[in-house]
Amino acid sequence: MFANTPITVAKGDGIGPEIMEATLHILKEGGAGLEIEEIEIGEKVYRRGNSAGIEQSSLDRLMRTKVFLKAPINTPQGGGFKSLNVTTRKLLGLYANVRPCVAYDPYVRTKHPGMDVVIVRENEEDLYAGIEYQHTPDQAQCLKIITRSGCQRIVRYAFEYARRNGRKKVSCFTKDNIMRLTDGLFHRVFDEIGPEYPELEREHLIVDIGAAKLADTPEVFDVIVMPNLYGDILSDVAAQIAGSAGLAGSANIGAKYAMFEAIHGPAPRRAGQNLGNPSGLLLGSVMMLVHIGQADVAERVHNAWLRTIEDGIHTYDIFKDGISQEKAGTQEFAHAVTARL
Amino acid sequence: MFANTPITVAKGDGIGPEIMEATLHILKEGGAGLEIEEIEIGEKVYRRGNSAGIEQSSLDRLMRTKVFLKAPINTPQGGGFKSLNVTTRKLLGLYANVRPCVAYDPYVRTKHPGMDVVIVRENEEDLYAGIEYQHTPDQAQCLKIITRSGCQRIVRYAFEYARRNGRKKVSCFTKDNIMRLTDGLFHRVFDEIGPEYPELEREHLIVDIGAAKLADTPEVFDVIVMPNLYGDILSDVAAQIAGSAGLAGSANIGAKYAMFEAIHGPAPRRAGQNLGNPSGLLLGSVMMLVHIGQADVAERVHNAWLRTIEDGIHTYDIFKDGISQEKAGTQEFAHAVTARL
Ligand SMILES: CC(C)[C@H](C(=O)O)[C@@H](O)C(=O)O
Ligand SMILES: CC(C)[C@H](C(=O)O)[C@@H](O)C(=O)O
Repeated sequence: MFANTPITVAKGDGIGPEIMEATLHILKEGGAGLEIEEIEIGEKVYRRGNSAGIEQSSLDRLMRTKVFLKAPINTPQGGGFKSLNVTTRKLLGLYANVRPCVAYDPYVRTKHPGMDVVIVRENEEDLYAGIEYQHTPDQAQCLKIITRSGCQRIVRYAFEYARRNGRKKVSCFTKDNIMRLTDGLFHRVFDEIGPEYPELEREHLIVDIGAAKLADTPEVFDVIVMPNLYGDILSDVAAQIAGSAGLAGSANIGAKYAMFEAIHGPAPRRAGQNLGNPSGLLLGSVMMLVHIGQADVAERVHNAWLRTIEDGIHTYDIFKDGISQEKAGTQEFAHAVTARL
Repeated sequence: MFANTPITVAKGDGIGPEIMEATLHILKEGGAGLEIEEIEIGEKVYRRGNSAGIEQSSLDRLMRTKVFLKAPINTPQGGGFKSLNVTTRKLLGLYANVRPCVAYDPYVRTKHPGMDVVIVRENEEDLYAGIEYQHTPDQAQCLKIITRSGCQRIVRYAFEYARRNGRKKVSCFTKDNIMRLTDGLFHRVFDEIGPEYPELEREHLIVDIGAAKLADTPEVFDVIVMPNLYGDILSDVAAQIAGSAGLAGSANIGAKYAMFEAIHGPAPRRAGQNLGNPSGLLLGSVMMLVHIGQADVAERVHNAWLRTIEDGIHTYDIFKDGISQEKAGTQEFAHAVTARL
């Protein structure tokens, strides 16, 4: 049906291998045309003395396939290990991190029914540039870097995303009453580019006020674009109050490459017990299917997943008040999804 | 009853003068022993060309009385105006920003009944050091500065606060998986000082995960200590989901000086219409009364305010589902409080 698209896959750490297996099983049954190359990343690679958690040969492969489906990994504490997430985002130029946070009321417990927010997080700059230094044991500094071209790319991405997906409003959060040059630049670029999208409503909020509103009445937001660190914090907030951080997928998009993942971590204590929830990774891979031009498979898989949730089939981490439910293991959950394809 | 304690008061902008008048009226009726000196700050001072929004003579007065009760002010956009909040915090060495965020369920609408969280925010360092520069129109940088002594002061304050107020747990939020030197220092100091308070439970959470948990299940937290910017964002989140940012007061504490305020802004569009809610400023001034040794007046005023809320008397900004309520103006609300003293 499709020419198979080559993608690179990494199973990661903790519950990673189990949820990746479940996800790939569903994708295959759903008819995705994928040619899968596997690489090793994370803890095992760090332990071999590689401070980035990924070998050069794996990076080369990634760059050939251009599309990367990544399970969560563990970064060992201390010892100069660098975050693989941050490294790949920077090496591959993945400037946009897109995180849809949707309430599945009444099928998943939420205090915020009707919530449907997409956080578009700048993914390379800000305090994540990784420039930190310590002159004396008593003082440390970290550089927050914001560039005009970085702002332009992410702000345009947010408006294009909103237009492409029939969204109505783009909000921008910064703290430019304090950081007038850095966050001010982000805000200014938002005001410059916004008018090119006259059909979209737009607004700017100081991030503390925006965050409070997002946590209290998320249903008033649609697409929100923001610098890296705010996006890190507030996408976790939004995913969690929508129902669970375990249900959110994430697309990391660049001009040449793209990486798809779950927003949650590897949950090492749950590993190897058939307990992990593959939903976040599966929804990440649904975004991947759209990205590689297999939108109808994406829709089929997404719908099967929705029907599974609606039928009350859940892994152990998901709560839903007052509705009969079945507690499924990772594999049982995956089979329930494939049965609904 | 008390020797009058000299304090400096500033009425600020927007709804500031109205809520300050209401607050001072309640304090007086409550029997607070205060000798009030008034200074002018904010918009009018900025407009006279003073880029800090406060004259030197006012600062001198502040430093004499040592205690400052401050209404919200307006900082004009652009033109090199500096945030008066940040300036006074730095000039007066107000290193601890204490923000209790309490649910008044069922008297004020909240999705988080039982919430009772105190955010202890570091108040001088971090990106708020105000060191920002721009080499070219295309790139701007801001310095995040963290010092060991700054961390020690705020972490110790948080543990002492918890002990003094019979709290059970102190949580610490940082992003030290990315900012290993700066946020790492904060986390390390937390781990160093914590064991001196063996009766208090303690935990560290990465700020994105902590923020998500705070927004979803705030009732699991007690005292939370964190660097400046996270505290700015998450105290607004906590106050808002507890019921309303309009109900939260804030204490800014230093070794010599202290400043008390509401956490909300001047709401200029509501100004001059008897619409402002004096609760945030009043609860700030209750903390002030404790600070200056008038704890029994503080309790009396606090209880009268609580009874007012419990009797369903509210200003227009407060919602409470399913309970009969009366919508009061600023003055009517203040009179309702004094009637319950
Ligand atoms: C693991 C960590 C480096 C990462 C981040 O901070 O970006 C994670 O929290 C995320 O949001 O993807
Ligand atoms: C007005 C602003 C400078 C201030 C801050 O960011 O600290 C405010 O948001 C606060 O939290 O007191």
